Amino acid sequence: MTSDSFAPFVARHIGPGDSDLEHMLSTIGASDVADLVARAVPQAIAQKEPLTLEAAGSEAEVLAELREKASRNRVLTSMIGLGYYGTHTPGVIRRNILENPAWYTAYTPYQPEISQGRLEALLNFQTVVTDLTGLTTAGSSLLDEATAVAEAMTLMRRASKSAKDAVLVVDEQVMPQSIAVTQTRATPLGIEVVVADLRDVKDADALVEAAGGKSVFGVIVQYPSADGQIVDWKALTEAAHEHGALVTAAADLLALTLIASPGSWGADVAVGTSQRFGVPMGFGGPHAGYMSVRAGLERNMPGRLVGVSLDADGHQAYRLALQTREQHIRREKATSNICTAQVLLAVMASMYAVYHGPQGLAKIAEDVHAKARLVAAALPKAGLEVVHDTFFDTLAVRSEGRAQALVDSALEHDVNVWKADEETVLISLDETTTQGEIDALGAAWGFRTREADEASALPKALVREDEYLTHPVFNSHHSETAMLRYLRRLADRDYALDRGMIPLGSCTMKLNATTEMESITWPEFANLHPFAPANQNEGIRELITDLEQWLCDITGYDDISLQPNAGSQGELAGLLAIHAYHQANGEGHRNICLIPASAHGTNAASAVMAGLKVVVVKTAASGEVDLEDFKGKLKEHGENLAAIMVTYPSTHGVFEDTITEICSLVHEAGGQVYVDGANLNAMVGLAQPGKFGGDVSHLNLHKTFCIPHGGGGPGVGPVAVREHLAPHLPNHPLFAEAGPATGVGPISAAPFGSASILPISWAYVRLMGGAGLTRATQFAVVNANYVAARLREAYPVLYAGTDGLVAHECILDLRALTKESGVTVDDVAKRLIDYGFHAPTMSFPVAGTLMVEPTESESLEELDRFVEAMLAIRAEIQDVIDGKVAAEDSALRHAPHTALSLTSEWDHPYERREAVYPGSTDPRAKYWAPVRRIDGAYGDRNLVCSCPPPEAFED
Amino acid sequence: MTSDSFAPFVARHIGPGDSDLEHMLSTIGASDVADLVARAVPQAIAQKEPLTLEAAGSEAEVLAELREKASRNRVLTSMIGLGYYGTHTPGVIRRNILENPAWYTAYTPYQPEISQGRLEALLNFQTVVTDLTGLTTAGSSLLDEATAVAEAMTLMRRASKSAKDAVLVVDEQVMPQSIAVTQTRATPLGIEVVVADLRDVKDADALVEAAGGKSVFGVIVQYPSADGQIVDWKALTEAAHEHGALVTAAADLLALTLIASPGSWGADVAVGTSQRFGVPMGFGGPHAGYMSVRAGLERNMPGRLVGVSLDADGHQAYRLALQTREQHIRREKATSNICTAQVLLAVMASMYAVYHGPQGLAKIAEDVHAKARLVAAALPKAGLEVVHDTFFDTLAVRSEGRAQALVDSALEHDVNVWKADEETVLISLDETTTQGEIDALGAAWGFRTREADEASALPKALVREDEYLTHPVFNSHHSETAMLRYLRRLADRDYALDRGMIPLGSCTMKLNATTEMESITWPEFANLHPFAPANQNEGIRELITDLEQWLCDITGYDDISLQPNAGSQGELAGLLAIHAYHQANGEGHRNICLIPASAHGTNAASAVMAGLKVVVVKTAASGEVDLEDFKGKLKEHGENLAAIMVTYPSTHGVFEDTITEICSLVHEAGGQVYVDGANLNAMVGLAQPGKFGGDVSHLNLHKTFCIPHGGGGPGVGPVAVREHLAPHLPNHPLFAEAGPATGVGPISAAPFGSASILPISWAYVRLMGGAGLTRATQFAVVNANYVAARLREAYPVLYAGTDGLVAHECILDLRALTKESGVTVDDVAKRLIDYGFHAPTMSFPVAGTLMVEPTESESLEELDRFVEAMLAIRAEIQDVIDGKVAAEDSALRHAPHTALSLTSEWDHPYERREAVYPGSTDPRAKYWAPVRRIDGAYGDRNLVCSCPPPEAFED
Repeated sequence: MTSDSFAPFVARHIGPGDSDLEHMLSTIGASDVADLVARAVPQAIAQKEPLTLEAAGSEAEVLAELREKASRNRVLTSMIGLGYYGTHTPGVIRRNILENPAWYTAYTPYQPEISQGRLEALLNFQTVVTDLTGLTTAGSSLLDEATAVAEAMTLMRRASKSAKDAVLVVDEQVMPQSIAVTQTRATPLGIEVVVADLRDVKDADALVEAAGGKSVFGVIVQYPSADGQIVDWKALTEAAHEHGALVTAAADLLALTLIASPGSWGADVAVGTSQRFGVPMGFGGPHAGYMSVRAGLERNMPGRLVGVSLDADGHQAYRLALQTREQHIRREKATSNICTAQVLLAVMASMYAVYHGPQGLAKIAEDVHAKARLVAAALPKAGLEVVHDTFFDTLAVRSEGRAQALVDSALEHDVNVWKADEETVLISLDETTTQGEIDALGAAWGFRTREADEASALPKALVREDEYLTHPVFNSHHSETAMLRYLRRLADRDYALDRGMIPLGSCTMKLNATTEMESITWPEFANLHPFAPANQNEGIRELITDLEQWLCDITGYDDISLQPNAGSQGELAGLLAIHAYHQANGEGHRNICLIPASAHGTNAASAVMAGLKVVVVKTAASGEVDLEDFKGKLKEHGENLAAIMVTYPSTHGVFEDTITEICSLVHEAGGQVYVDGANLNAMVGLAQPGKFGGDVSHLNLHKTFCIPHGGGGPGVGPVAVREHLAPHLPNHPLFAEAGPATGVGPISAAPFGSASILPISWAYVRLMGGAGLTRATQFAVVNANYVAARLREAYPVLYAGTDGLVAHECILDLRALTKESGVTVDDVAKRLIDYGFHAPTMSFPVAGTLMVEPTESESLEELDRFVEAMLAIRAEIQDVIDGKVAAEDSALRHAPHTALSLTSEWDHPYERREAVYPGSTDPRAKYWAPVRRIDGAYGDRNLVCSCPPPEAFED
Repeated sequence: MTSDSFAPFVARHIGPGDSDLEHMLSTIGASDVADLVARAVPQAIAQKEPLTLEAAGSEAEVLAELREKASRNRVLTSMIGLGYYGTHTPGVIRRNILENPAWYTAYTPYQPEISQGRLEALLNFQTVVTDLTGLTTAGSSLLDEATAVAEAMTLMRRASKSAKDAVLVVDEQVMPQSIAVTQTRATPLGIEVVVADLRDVKDADALVEAAGGKSVFGVIVQYPSADGQIVDWKALTEAAHEHGALVTAAADLLALTLIASPGSWGADVAVGTSQRFGVPMGFGGPHAGYMSVRAGLERNMPGRLVGVSLDADGHQAYRLALQTREQHIRREKATSNICTAQVLLAVMASMYAVYHGPQGLAKIAEDVHAKARLVAAALPKAGLEVVHDTFFDTLAVRSEGRAQALVDSALEHDVNVWKADEETVLISLDETTTQGEIDALGAAWGFRTREADEASALPKALVREDEYLTHPVFNSHHSETAMLRYLRRLADRDYALDRGMIPLGSCTMKLNATTEMESITWPEFANLHPFAPANQNEGIRELITDLEQWLCDITGYDDISLQPNAGSQGELAGLLAIHAYHQANGEGHRNICLIPASAHGTNAASAVMAGLKVVVVKTAASGEVDLEDFKGKLKEHGENLAAIMVTYPSTHGVFEDTITEICSLVHEAGGQVYVDGANLNAMVGLAQPGKFGGDVSHLNLHKTFCIPHGGGGPGVGPVAVREHLAPHLPNHPLFAEAGPATGVGPISAAPFGSASILPISWAYVRLMGGAGLTRATQFAVVNANYVAARLREAYPVLYAGTDGLVAHECILDLRALTKESGVTVDDVAKRLIDYGFHAPTMSFPVAGTLMVEPTESESLEELDRFVEAMLAIRAEIQDVIDGKVAAEDSALRHAPHTALSLTSEWDHPYERREAVYPGSTDPRAKYWAPVRRIDGAYGDRNLVCSCPPPEAFED
């Protein structure tokens, strides 16, 4: 069977051509693909029937179908607000970031030397957030505002010295979805959440009273409030501090250009979304949530943090700071399971601020505020009461018992407004609101606008007076030409899939095809508000239903929720479903989660967040789960066993034979089996976790299903379950269609999570079909085994199945070489940069190793280029072993080499040419690292997480 | 007046901010902008009233208006054919070329060292054309198929040894628009064109007979013919050769993947379009025309030709070959006035071939042919006769007197077909035709398709048997990942506006804003056939009418034609209008065209093509037209004076005081004044050529009105005229609305030329408004005078107005420095690459000088960076003058320096760091030239114009 037998796109997606296959198979020692797969995948779990989905379409056909679906969305004027606002994405930003593979195909900046562009952009983002919120340190994005609020809860819980049973008090005008997500998260942690009207709480006693007499560890307020009012929270904050509680402000960044920052009135934490900084609403996401904290709390922050450090030549350089805080290091001791961020969207938001600058942002905010005043002035004449005297962009409009009528009449004029209660509707004005749209609402409600009130409706005491965004980067790139060049310069510093292979074990950096990406910027998908009525989003929801069905077909599960907007959220949702299931069966005491030692750290962190107790199962020398230890743990905890979390194929890149036995034993003990879907790319069409024993899996659409990594997000982490867990999937208080009424509550701010990027995965499946997807999996296995076969002699392949084969990735063991030569995994990873590659995964799951996952999209030519580089590096290591050069003098240790370093005195024992064009590196296609190796520890010791002054870069 | 007073886009388009202005004016020595402009522009021509256009819109508003216009185009299924076919643009190509500023903002590759990416792409294009046509040398694109046919006529006329009165014979089934354009071009040259049915011409006698008994210098046939038939032209070709005539085949590149190449049956020349290789129809253009020739004719080819040569290190490198053929060198001795090519479209077409490869292209062709056979087999059952037994994609369908009825019924089913005559319609199938569309036609005409005839309808004798596209580049990049990386690698070799300033005198490399570019890829603009009924393209035609009106308002002319698809074509159209006007007045004898010595070479070449005799007027020492010489020439030729062609402001970058006097004197002598609009960017809002004496001007929308240069095309060169010339503007035989019935005929293949890129200029004008456009002109003048003021001491500014001011560009005179130091203009230009700049225009209009046009879009920061680089270079020259280093040893002479060169032995008297990071070059933003200085002469001596083998690049 040649590629001709498949849909035309299949040959575009899969790297090797038909003519390459024979050579690859003979290198591996397999007679054909079927033989290889049959040997790699244990018979016990092999899928019996071929994957049947609808016949695949051509790229033109699939785009036509997407256009048809798009045409069945109705994009009306949104005045709903509630954290989602119309915004103009500047064309130069959309085209050169969101539609530019140099940005969207990049990986998480774990190799900072080749990620300086997006790290600078993220540092800009952090500076925007710290400046506007008036706090000292901001992270480089969270998943959305609601999860950021929930993270603030746990942060305050950790940082507060309050009693164990102290409660969280949330103002009732915090966004409803934020309250709901916080409650979902609080429950398994045993945190009590009290929702109350805090506007009049001015002293500690009143706070305790509002908390029902309980001690309080944290307070959360919205600023401005969900109903538009701008409350001065200063007295409340002082009261909370006096009481020993922390205060979090969920604040609107645009409003903060005009009103006093939360930091200025004492808030400890600020959270929110940066969506309205140029990121389309997209039916709910993705957007970058944010968090910033006052001095002293930075080491408690969840998620990623970009910091400044120095490279080996003493030049300023950026990298991720304080990584030891993160879930993959701290595992079950982690305080958050956040892993993926929203890098691409944070970059967009930061560039929106760069392009507009402080004056431009303030002008946009003033325009929005003027529109709100214009409407506010007109409403009373139509008999409509404007509830609050103070507001920024949102008006609470009151009319006795007429809220529904107001909603309906606005709808007749193509305007969506929000019904807060039977008497009240909310309307939010934004950057995009036109006079025509205001007039449409006027026609609906019988008002006519004349002139905006001259007087600001911002409280005098809260008018912002301090400066922000004074750094030159926010005051230089205001012409489109200057902006374009800034974006190009940053992109040129980074290495992404548009330059070469990123062979990351478990991260499946495969093709993100243009046809898959194309529709996400169409207005019919981009401009939908997530809480708009269901009959306005039938097109996208049909697409979601298709995708749900296909993912169930592929995985063998019965139901799925696309709401989790990252793998970590999918894990949490899956574990919450398990917990809820046990509770529903009267077995709420089951609280043990078995996790193999080789598991990704996020598994353990998620389990803890789901209220489970982690028990680690040993890994045998072969890399498999140690069955004896497993059985022992099972025996010990059987009564209380909630679940086991296993990754399949294992994080060692092997199809383990024991999986079916493990599943049976867990089921026998009354536990549930959670199969981590990180490695699903090795199984699509070959094996189905929902059939071979899994009860629940989360998938990573940004791994297996072609959503690009975006430089570190967005991700989508759907949770798929067997029928018995379906009633416990996530749902959403503001959108009934988003999940079962019996569900565990919302796990993300938006009903369908990062809905606007789901067309990517939908298109991938439509373009490949069942046969094409299976073919892709086969080539993922072929490519990995080809690399393993070619490198096995130079670097031992750490784990393999019984037949010597790996699954879709292979672990190269450097430990013996390191011992013998002193050359570390780090040295090899950095040296690969000189050869023009992104390093494989380092020291996971086994310290001292490199894990390579080439994916099916890499061509034979690129695989060979990688293999040749690795072999050339092996020869360099040999020179060290042979004593020809000391490790500390070798090109390995001094990698990566910059072009700048060539112009200095050259006192290395190797030649300049060897340094920068090693092996068969093509000088016409050279990627230049912008900095030398970065000293991470220096940066952690000298923490700087906002833009350094330009002088810092002078030589 | 600050930028706040203008539409918001104005501050995005103009580089300097309000806060920069004071510093710039004080450097220049002007009190304010109005003062500066009043001093620079002579009072006699200064525009009295401010430019009034409609109020400018915001980017969001203008996009909304464009969407509204787009929605009023009706995109039906096109089966019209006639040189325009549906085609799928691969997403990876559209996104990463057509929508990527790294490609579309590049300039013509006159600086080959920083243009290696697009030069490689063009070499691929040339290889596609030579391989498919079976000829030895192809150029790197012509404007469209019809002008390529016309160029083939003049090439054959030059190459043939036939008698002076020999005629051109054109087969009657050559595309009608090609015949019409050829006739427009033939008339002024005195060439007789005979259109005849040549299918049965098999010997020389029959050829002479078909030519009405006259001697024949050239024959043009279409292959396959316009009506779809595939004629074997071998016997005709032999007969023509025997007679001493040359033969041109206008051939379809897709068909050539299946049928014998024109070269194989003896054609001397092949021409055509590459539109259906992935370039949307776009209501007529732009697309890349092509020409290839047999050995011996390469030096006769019009247009640009890319060739292979060597750089200073002996590495393979590309550059434009045989430039001495070109119009800017040969002036009135030129044989073609072609200047702009269609680089961006040629790049797209070449990449379509790279991505599909030979097998993929043949597969597409076979599919198209199968669709045609499918329909052909079904038609007879519906009583419709398929006229020809042989065909590729086009069927002539005959039904006595029912052609109109067939057209009408097809239209009712949303299918456009072409009425050839009262009995015959043509239908063309293409890559995009779906079974649904065929069924729609079937429903209209009463047929139902069953199975395609197994038997091919290609003539057996003409089935292609030789291989093509065997070069690795066409057999390597077939996965999307591989293609994406190839495009990125090529783009990374080039310098375009996304990296920095391109300060080219006369070429006005200003911002090409995303919002301006965005709509050109919308299906409603991209997928219109140029000959579709007028009621299907009302949106785009309304946009065209708007733009025509605005351009008239801006220039002060009365009428305009947007049909010319390059400046050279606008010139020709203008001169033809002048000629026709004189004829209509009974003064057809007026055939003298005065052209100042400083004029661009294209002026003279165009005049010759318009049948005029060029008389050169001297330039005075001051740079102005030598008035005495002018008056003498006027006296000498007054009786026969047709016109004067002047550029204003002059090519010296000065507003000359004498312009009004010159205009009056010419008018008094009965001549017409042609004002070349190349420098219109200095006049918009300040002076109007249609008011101060011009009778006709061509504009360059790719200079003044923001259409990007695309790396050397597309361009749009509208011709604007005063009322008396309006009846003589171009028109089109297939589209009545495209020009006056009394017009000179078509100048381009398509009725509205490169219609699909007109939204760019439309958007620019809408975004700027009259005030914004005027502001832009003022800043163009401010920026040029700022650069002149800062560089005047280091480099004499060659010409200036009476007040020491320049217009929008300035000429830096290096002659004295060259004499003193031996450092040439070339050295400075190449050294600028090391500093991160594209060189200014070299040695035009004065040898030994550099002409700098910064445009309004460059920021003060970038201007200063350029000035600093020029001053640093001046210091380097001083070192040579001072004897510190010999010119031949200096960094100037050895520039540009590559990264690779840093790794070699270093035997220069300057340091490596000085070589590649001179002055204050920022190492973090370094542009690396991919090759050293290129030896052009070597390449011309050793002409290679198709892809060299990969081994050629080995070290």
